[in-house]
Amino acid sequence: MTTSQTVDGARPRGPLSGVLVIDLTHVLNGPFGTALMADLGARVIKIEPPVHGDDTRSNPPYVGGKSLYFACVNRGKESIVLDLKAEEDRAIFLSMVKQADVLTENFRPGVMDRLGFSYEELAKINPRLVYASSSGFGHTGPLATFPAYDTVIQAMSGLMDATGFPGGPPTRVGTSISDLCAGTFMYAGITTALFERERSGKGAHVDIAMFDSTLAFMEHPFMAYAATGEGPERIGNRHPSMAPFDVFQAKDKPFVICCGNDHLFSLLANMLGLHELIDDPLFRTNDDRNRNEAALKTRLEAIFATQDAAHWLSAIHDAGVPVAPLLTVAEAATLEQTKVRNMVVEAGGMKMPGNPIKISGFPDSDRRTAAPDLDQHGASLRAEFGS
Amino acid sequence: MTTSQTVDGARPRGPLSGVLVIDLTHVLNGPFGTALMADLGARVIKIEPPVHGDDTRSNPPYVGGKSLYFACVNRGKESIVLDLKAEEDRAIFLSMVKQADVLTENFRPGVMDRLGFSYEELAKINPRLVYASSSGFGHTGPLATFPAYDTVIQAMSGLMDATGFPGGPPTRVGTSISDLCAGTFMYAGITTALFERERSGKGAHVDIAMFDSTLAFMEHPFMAYAATGEGPERIGNRHPSMAPFDVFQAKDKPFVICCGNDHLFSLLANMLGLHELIDDPLFRTNDDRNRNEAALKTRLEAIFATQDAAHWLSAIHDAGVPVAPLLTVAEAATLEQTKVRNMVVEAGGMKMPGNPIKISGFPDSDRRTAAPDLDQHGASLRAEFGS
Repeated sequence: MTTSQTVDGARPRGPLSGVLVIDLTHVLNGPFGTALMADLGARVIKIEPPVHGDDTRSNPPYVGGKSLYFACVNRGKESIVLDLKAEEDRAIFLSMVKQADVLTENFRPGVMDRLGFSYEELAKINPRLVYASSSGFGHTGPLATFPAYDTVIQAMSGLMDATGFPGGPPTRVGTSISDLCAGTFMYAGITTALFERERSGKGAHVDIAMFDSTLAFMEHPFMAYAATGEGPERIGNRHPSMAPFDVFQAKDKPFVICCGNDHLFSLLANMLGLHELIDDPLFRTNDDRNRNEAALKTRLEAIFATQDAAHWLSAIHDAGVPVAPLLTVAEAATLEQTKVRNMVVEAGGMKMPGNPIKISGFPDSDRRTAAPDLDQHGASLRAEFGS
Repeated sequence: MTTSQTVDGARPRGPLSGVLVIDLTHVLNGPFGTALMADLGARVIKIEPPVHGDDTRSNPPYVGGKSLYFACVNRGKESIVLDLKAEEDRAIFLSMVKQADVLTENFRPGVMDRLGFSYEELAKINPRLVYASSSGFGHTGPLATFPAYDTVIQAMSGLMDATGFPGGPPTRVGTSISDLCAGTFMYAGITTALFERERSGKGAHVDIAMFDSTLAFMEHPFMAYAATGEGPERIGNRHPSMAPFDVFQAKDKPFVICCGNDHLFSLLANMLGLHELIDDPLFRTNDDRNRNEAALKTRLEAIFATQDAAHWLSAIHDAGVPVAPLLTVAEAATLEQTKVRNMVVEAGGMKMPGNPIKISGFPDSDRRTAAPDLDQHGASLRAEFGS
């Protein structure tokens, strides 16, 4: 029994304390958003379907027989199994909705309507309800019911096309970024609507799409399209308009240099003994270096190949040029910085990423309540919300 | 003169209407967060330094002589140039702070303290102030003042290490994802603190780090670390635990198949005439297919090479298997879905991504007020907030 398990049921005091969330979300994008709410003090009641609950309860990898996937994005929540097509369970659900501040769902658009639980219906029994939907393409438009997975959204938003190397294939981001940014925007939409409700007294329907959320992040690739009507070429690890601003290979492993202007470049060139590059017409200005970026990289990597990354990180940093190591997740997770920021937390004996929203006046513990077992709080919740 | 320019100064009605934001942020991560606030109705006053203002005003690409980069993340804001080291301008700034709901800044930690504008100082003159900082590594810990760029954070969080192909190099996400997710978490922290303030009457310091924000998104790679103590191998475009769930090459271009279970695989195999695969011990269960993913991909791509992607998208979709095109940004931006969702907006004659936070009861226009010229609102703001 770890500490985090013994404190089960004790919610952290947070800016969302007192907020009751009825959470119908499953898999990743919605649960990520409501886990943030639980982290910040909300009471989140996760409603799971019979018989096996959220599909991700059986997703690998496992620690101590439990799914890490499920554990990460459901920490701090309560669980009850409800059959939303059975009369008695529907009554319990509606009793919860009457008292709730927030309802969250990430079903395919139309599912909640067919259950009789559309925003319009639930607002009738609780006009203060903030009802948040997170779906692949949103609740409007011709693709509203198109099957959406993170990979589909990365592919259809242009993100995959924009990631990777010149001449190489389109590349998926190595994390389910479209799910996670949608969960974050869902969280942001909910807190926005809660703030507005404090002033107007009225709830609202928050309609978040993984597709919209990913498009909102398209930045440089989108600018290329907006300026020229065409998508950009993939540019690998380099900056679109600065050089040298890229990953470079040292003798043992790669590292990063971020040289954003001519002054920094002169510091770098002098430190490397490449004084002649500073006035070389190929490399004199950032525009020159950007145009001749491949030639510059060859020159620099010929030198970097002579020493390990640790040497260059120290020498280039001391020269006053921004430089950084390229770390694995394991290395990132064990940095002192990560520990000080509580960005690895433990819940139910498992390690997972912490909460990035730090607000003064509230504790931000490195221990969180474990994700619930299926229907762990079913009996007490039925007693609390039953007729 | 476009419509969007003629409506300059008319803020959209939104859930943040009436909220006054004093915005000291510059470049990308902070401005992205405050642009979301402007999109949702807040009044955002951007304070820029003499002489040239925000550095990104001179960032390419340009449309009509103006930086698209600056235009995208500063739409809907007012601009005033203030010298925060000059007495008269400091007085105007403090007069703004007294009336503000929110102050935002993304300087390196320590800069605001040295200006005399720490949270503690500003809270003395406005205890209701929500003061949001967004920085590379946050305001605590040994890396707090380490120079941070998006590429540095992608490299140090493990994201770059997790993105790319087996045997290939670590790969930067083709958009400044660490800047943008930090801006989104800053927005989320601000709205959370505003909600809490409605109940407590007190402001707070919101402390967001690009590093924390990116770690929070590490999901599958982090799970591999948490389960084994080591980072994951790069897996290219495939799903970490399902197959076939990947990008496949058709005759003309790549497309995506998302086959999450045995039933979907049997539908796919039957449609392709590969009936024998369904009971092949190499491919029978998802675990089998995942283990023999490369062999399966070879079998499938031999068939996909015979027809264009359009053929397979239609045939596989009709067979009931999730499938999707791999689009460029230009293709994504011109989808009917994108138009219906207002995810391409126009401001100052430029196209840019729209606002993904859709909240019922408020308009979500495809026209936004242009980003301001430098000091465009200086005179009127000096009149409003001067002594």
